[in-house]
Formats: sequence, structure tokens, C-alpha cells
Amino acid sequence: MHRSNEPHGHRVGRNTAELSRRLGERFVRDPELIAPYSRDSSRAQPAGEALGLVLAESTADVSAALAWAHANRTPVSVRGAGTGLTGGANAYAGGLVVSLERMNRVLRVDASNRLAEVEAGVVTADLDAACREHGLFFPPDPASARSCTVGGNIATNAGGLRCVSHGVTRDSVAGLEVVLADGRVMRTGARTRKNVVGYDLTSLFVGSEGTLGVITSALVRLKPVPPGAPRTFRAAFDRVEDAGRAVTAIVNGPATPEVLELMDALSVEIIESFRPSGLTIPGGAMLVGQTVGLDAAERASAIVATCAAFGAVDTEISETDALLEARRLSNPALNARGLKISCDVGVPVAALAEVFHGIGEISCRLGLRVSSVAHAGDGNLHCTVEAPSGPDGTASAERVIDEITRLALSLGGTITGEHGIGSLKRHELPWQLDPVAMEVQRSIKAALDPRGILTPDRAI
Amino acid sequence: MHRSNEPHGHRVGRNTAELSRRLGERFVRDPELIAPYSRDSSRAQPAGEALGLVLAESTADVSAALAWAHANRTPVSVRGAGTGLTGGANAYAGGLVVSLERMNRVLRVDASNRLAEVEAGVVTADLDAACREHGLFFPPDPASARSCTVGGNIATNAGGLRCVSHGVTRDSVAGLEVVLADGRVMRTGARTRKNVVGYDLTSLFVGSEGTLGVITSALVRLKPVPPGAPRTFRAAFDRVEDAGRAVTAIVNGPATPEVLELMDALSVEIIESFRPSGLTIPGGAMLVGQTVGLDAAERASAIVATCAAFGAVDTEISETDALLEARRLSNPALNARGLKISCDVGVPVAALAEVFHGIGEISCRLGLRVSSVAHAGDGNLHCTVEAPSGPDGTASAERVIDEITRLALSLGGTITGEHGIGSLKRHELPWQLDPVAMEVQRSIKAALDPRGILTPDRAI
Repeated sequence: MHRSNEPHGHRVGRNTAELSRRLGERFVRDPELIAPYSRDSSRAQPAGEALGLVLAESTADVSAALAWAHANRTPVSVRGAGTGLTGGANAYAGGLVVSLERMNRVLRVDASNRLAEVEAGVVTADLDAACREHGLFFPPDPASARSCTVGGNIATNAGGLRCVSHGVTRDSVAGLEVVLADGRVMRTGARTRKNVVGYDLTSLFVGSEGTLGVITSALVRLKPVPPGAPRTFRAAFDRVEDAGRAVTAIVNGPATPEVLELMDALSVEIIESFRPSGLTIPGGAMLVGQTVGLDAAERASAIVATCAAFGAVDTEISETDALLEARRLSNPALNARGLKISCDVGVPVAALAEVFHGIGEISCRLGLRVSSVAHAGDGNLHCTVEAPSGPDGTASAERVIDEITRLALSLGGTITGEHGIGSLKRHELPWQLDPVAMEVQRSIKAALDPRGILTPDRAI
Repeated sequence: MHRSNEPHGHRVGRNTAELSRRLGERFVRDPELIAPYSRDSSRAQPAGEALGLVLAESTADVSAALAWAHANRTPVSVRGAGTGLTGGANAYAGGLVVSLERMNRVLRVDASNRLAEVEAGVVTADLDAACREHGLFFPPDPASARSCTVGGNIATNAGGLRCVSHGVTRDSVAGLEVVLADGRVMRTGARTRKNVVGYDLTSLFVGSEGTLGVITSALVRLKPVPPGAPRTFRAAFDRVEDAGRAVTAIVNGPATPEVLELMDALSVEIIESFRPSGLTIPGGAMLVGQTVGLDAAERASAIVATCAAFGAVDTEISETDALLEARRLSNPALNARGLKISCDVGVPVAALAEVFHGIGEISCRLGLRVSSVAHAGDGNLHCTVEAPSGPDGTASAERVIDEITRLALSLGGTITGEHGIGSLKRHELPWQLDPVAMEVQRSIKAALDPRGILTPDRAI
């Protein structure tokens, strides 16, 4: 299977006059204005200085930009809010940056069918708020919901805290509008719950990280806001493995949480030093979560009792969501410390105790501290390494991440649950995918983007 | 975008000795033995007499068969139990039939991760029974669950009665083993709830109707059997539109059913004359359904109360599932009457009253009776036309189906919810898909099956 034509070795000085004429002030050439759009929130470096930035305000703008890039064999990076963590949205040298941030309208909430049509650049929390006016909510809930965009969530299938109860973002996407590599516009999916008309292009584009097309709008599925007042709970454990065992038991028990998160001792310490909230640093780890519904209080009690049975030394049930707020501060707190070498592995929930034990062993053996926060209920871990400064420190930290990733795979897990591959994890792909699956991925990429202009050399 | 090479005009007398040598008695040449494997349960006719039948017992058998077919440019049809309703599994003239019926082992139930590994030819109800030994169940529940196979369910994304509460079959598939057109074997998906490693090939193959590869085994997601005793309920309505309005209200209300089905008066009459169970024929339609969980009785009462508010004239709550049994007899009862001209449209649930009203209008105007059963809770209707015998009658009935299909589309619906396109609905594809989406479908098909041997000229 041959690789798609690579766009590298592009010609400099391409004629961008057509783009200026079509897009006016929405096509930006000033490097200083482009710079803030040239990288995501990860440690990955942009591949070089972009040729221009398209501040798209419509599908037609995106189509014009891609048709131009296709004709001129120009690499394109695509971004919502730039909260990505794998370098997937970083600019290419001589490339075009397409920003969806101005396409930020909630087009329609169809309450009686529990659907919403939304442009890709809508901030996730804004969509959720618009739905709540109708007694509905948007289930995906990335920790960065107040800044990330729906289009970015869909492009990496990033779901965050509520996936344990509502499934991944893909489960909330009924259809998409997509601009293909050559500028053609396509609609996928249907307004019905069931639909088996042709291949499931919607699911193909969810998680495709900007490599197959640019998602410009989405038809998303909503759920009714549960009745009653939610409860939050926390449980402190002296040993992180016990917390892992408790999670496995909770997930397989009758009292289901809407959210079930784990913060190990080091991550609580990092969050508390960033913005103190009075949380006691646990000996090993703290579980925090939320229950909803008319029986939220009973559910929280049952979950806390399970925690106690697995060794929790201190538990609390609350009617506020301060505990979850602390969890949401994890990324800003890590950023404030300059900690960027992290991973996003997943394991089957029954393997949680084992993966935490193994991470402790790796940390000890390689002599670097690792902080872990986890969407524990679905087995998705975000581990960050404290690295000494300098290239040697970085290399050591990368080695820790590689070992954690191989550990997760050995337990039946995945190299990325929701951050995607981007540029940072591309070397790990063959660790998980068999060679035939990789060939199939690349043949699909070549079929849809024969010139290889869309987010080249990333994701697959 | 060019079409894939068509396998037609194949050479007769191809050398099948290699297949006999590789497969022994599992390669069948006797036309009488092949005949029962040459068609599905629909009105579609096989395209001709097959060259041979492969009774695969392993992935290696399927791989050998496809490698041979690829080398010899021979069209392949794939079948589980032959319960399909669109001609998708019908044999091709000079083609190979690959049957998965002997690959019928439940390989493993991983209770603590709520996963099962299962060969494609396992009968759906058998998988469900194996899971129930572990306190778990397999959510998809096609009306033909006691005879259809898991592989067939996945190939058409057929989910049946419980989709209203548990989602479609795609939502229950975590990974697949697939044999590609040239015999290569690939694994997709992961054991983790979250996974965003490369494109979602699992979802691409779900619903691909045998056109991209042959699914040989699946990793499926299970759910815990709800505690308590389920309740079934029924509500009779004088007008089918009122029943539709009641369904919309129930689905948007707080008391969620696990199953919510509608049978119109004619379909109840057909089922009762096939196997009398004492059901009273309703004036317009009957809703039947099931609630589960510790509050099953309260939920059933709330649902029945909603039905009464929307005009139900007679309601009942029961602890037996006789009402659902009647619903499951719909297809055998229609078959016994020789009624095969049917459709599988879907509409958004808020459009149910309108679609039923429209079907009545079409039936009156064209002078043919239409019976409808519906997975009403997810807006999926199976309508069957009573046609006079002979080609004129068939043509009139097909016209009714076409009009119902266009009506569903006009209401934001779909041409097929779970039966797939097969050969029977291929002319309807451009009614729903835009031309760009059709081109993309075909470019994916060409990338994965460049010689066009897998279920050619069907599905897309």
C-alpha cells in the first residue's frame, strides 16, 4: 500500500492572492497574529512558521481554504481552541492554519428529538448551557470544557468526566458536516436513532484528528437533565491500588456514578499548591465523583460504603461540587509547574489496581515522580512525569511515559483514550495496531486525501 | 471517482482444486447443498447459481476462501443464518458463498470488564444466554434473536427491541476480527471503553453489509441484568396517530421503558391469525413494552398513565412477557401470509404521529393495506404491504413502499434503520445521501476491496 503524496518540500511564495480575495480580513498573513494559532497545549513544537491563518466564519470559508490548499499542495492544520495535548493542531512550515473559533453558534436545539445542531467552534460548556435551558444536557464533559470546542472534542473523541455513565463523545454524535481535502462539502449521519445507510462516515470522522476532513458542524445527541440534586463524594485511600480495586467494584456494582475520578497523592498536592481548597493530601489516592437522579444520595452512600470496604480511610458526601472543581484544575496546575510530559493510556477497569501498582514500580525504578489523575470509572489515566530540566531529563521522562504505555498495553489497554495520537504518540502506533490495520488506515487516508494535505504525518 | 472493478463477466470453470485441497469437506460444490445457502429471507432473488459454498470453521478458512476469490476475481456473498431482509446475503452467479454458521463459539465472557469474545456465527440468543450465566446480558435484541447470528447483526447494525434503552448494535461492539478482501486478517478496536488510536475501523465495519470484509469474531460489550422482576405493558388505541403521540411523550418523559413497540391493528390481526394468543385487535394500534429495574412496576404504571392521557382505551400491566412474544411473531406471521414487500424506515420520535398519519393516507390513496410494526421508541418502522399476486400487484406494492420511504425522509428520517440496503434499497441511496457522501463511500470501498469481489453491487 503506497503512502499518500506528502506535501513537504512545498514551494515557497505560493500565490495567496486568491485566498485574500475570497476571504478578505479572514485570511491573516501577519506572523505575529498567526503565532498564537500555531500550537496546541502540549509540549510538541510547531513544525515551522505557517504561511497564513484562516479565521473561518462559514463552511464556505473552510471549503475555499481547503480547495486552495489542495490545488497548491499546502499542508493544513486545524484548530478549535488549541487545548489539544498531542501536537495535533500545531502549524506546518509554509502551511495553512484553519481556525474554527469564529464558527461558534448553537444553530438549533430540537428538544423533542433531543438533538442539537452546532458549529464546530462552539465552546463545549456553552453548548451544554444552551441545552440546559431546554432541560437537556450535552453528555461529553472534558476537563477543559470551559475552553475547548465541540469540534475539537469530536476530532479526538475526547469525552472527559462523564464517559463512565454516558459513553464516549462518538456516542453523542448523530451526524457531521465535513469539508473534504479538496473543498467538497459532505453531510453524514441522520436525525434518527437507527440508521444504516452506507458506511458510518460519522464515526470514521470522530477521532480522525483532522486528517480526513475538517468538521464544520455537528448534529449531537442530548440527554435529559436528571431530576433531583446531585451529590458529590470523595474517599481517601492510603494505597492507590486499593482505590483502583474500589473503582473496579463500584463500576461492577448496582450503584452507578455519573462521574468517578481518581487523583493520586502527588496530583492532589500539585492541585492544592496551585489553588488551595482545603483538600487533605491522601496517603495514596483520592476518589471523587458524582451521583445523579432522585436516588443520588443513596447511590453516593452505597459508593462510599464500597470505598470503605476496600480500605478508604476518610470519606465525605457533599451537595456542592467543590471536589470536582479541584479535579478540573489538574491541567492548569500541571501547566503552572511546567509539567508537560504526560500520557493518556487506558486499561480495562478490572486492571486498575494492577496498572497503578506498575506505575509505582516504574516510578521507583527510574527515579522520577509520576502524578496520575484518572477518569477511573472508564479506566482512562492521565499520568505526568516530573522531569529534571534539560534534554536528559526530558529523555528520562519520555522513557517513563513509554514504560507506562507498554504496561497499559500489556494489561489489554490502549495508548490513548481521548487525547489522540497527534505527533507525540505516532511512534507508539505499531505497539497497539497490527500491521494490516495500519495499512487499512493509510489506504483510507489516501482515498480521502490523495495529496496528503490534511494534518500530514500525524494521527495515523 | 471511478468505481471499483466489477467482478462480472467472470470466467467459468475456474480452478477450485486449491479450495478443495485447503478446505476439504468444508468446500461444497453440490448445487443441491448450496441452494439453501443461496438466499436470505427477503423477496430478493439470488443473482444466479453459486460456484461453491465454504462452510468456514475458522478465520483461516475464511482467509483461504477470500484469498482464492481475490486471486480469481470471484464475487463473494457472506451469510450467518440467512435472516436478512434486503437480499444482502444472496448468492452471485459463479460466486462463492461464505457461511459463518459453523463459527458458533462464545470464546470468552470477561465478566469483570463486561466483555465477551464471540465468533460471528453464534446465534444472538445463545450469546445472550451465555452472558446471563454471569449476571450480564447482550443488549442487541433483534426480533429474530433466536435464529439470527451476531455477525449478521453487526454487518447490518441490526438491534431490534432494546435499542430504545441500550443503543444500536454498534454501541455494543468494542472490536472485531475481520478478513479483508485479499485474505489478510485484521483486528480492530480495544478492550477499553475509551480508545482513539487511528480511525474507528470497528464502526466502519459495523453496518458495512459484507462489502468491506468478512467479520469472523467480535469483542462485544455487555450490561448487568437489571435487578428485580421486569414488567410488560400494553395499551390499545383507537387511532394509530394517538399511539404515536403517546410514544413521543413516553420517550421524552422520566419513566423510561427498556422496550417500546407498536403494532397497528392489521399487524395484530395477522399475528393473531398466525398463532392466537387472545390479544384483542385494537381499533388503531397497540403499544407493548417492558420496564426493568427495582422500580419496573412504577415505571410501567407511569407509562400506562401517559398512554391513557393520550387516548388509550384499554391498558394492562403484566408480569409475563406474552405480549412481547406476540411482537416477536410478526415476521413469521407475515411470511406465512406470503407478505414480503416491506420497508425499514426510521423517523425522529417526535414525527411518529405524522408518519403514521401519512402511511394511512398513502394506503388509502393507493388502495393497498399496509401493516406496521415499529420499534416505536426509537422511531424505526417495519411496514409491509398486502399486494395482489402477480407483477402488477408487486409493482403497486413497491410504489407504496417508495412513497412511505419518501415520507419518512421528508420528516427527517432514514431509508433503513437496521435491515440495511442490500440489493432491494440500492435505488433509494441517492434519496438520502448527498453525492459527495456517495463518492466517499465508494472511494473507501475501492480502497479496501480494489477488485470489488465482496458483496458487489449491494449496500453502497
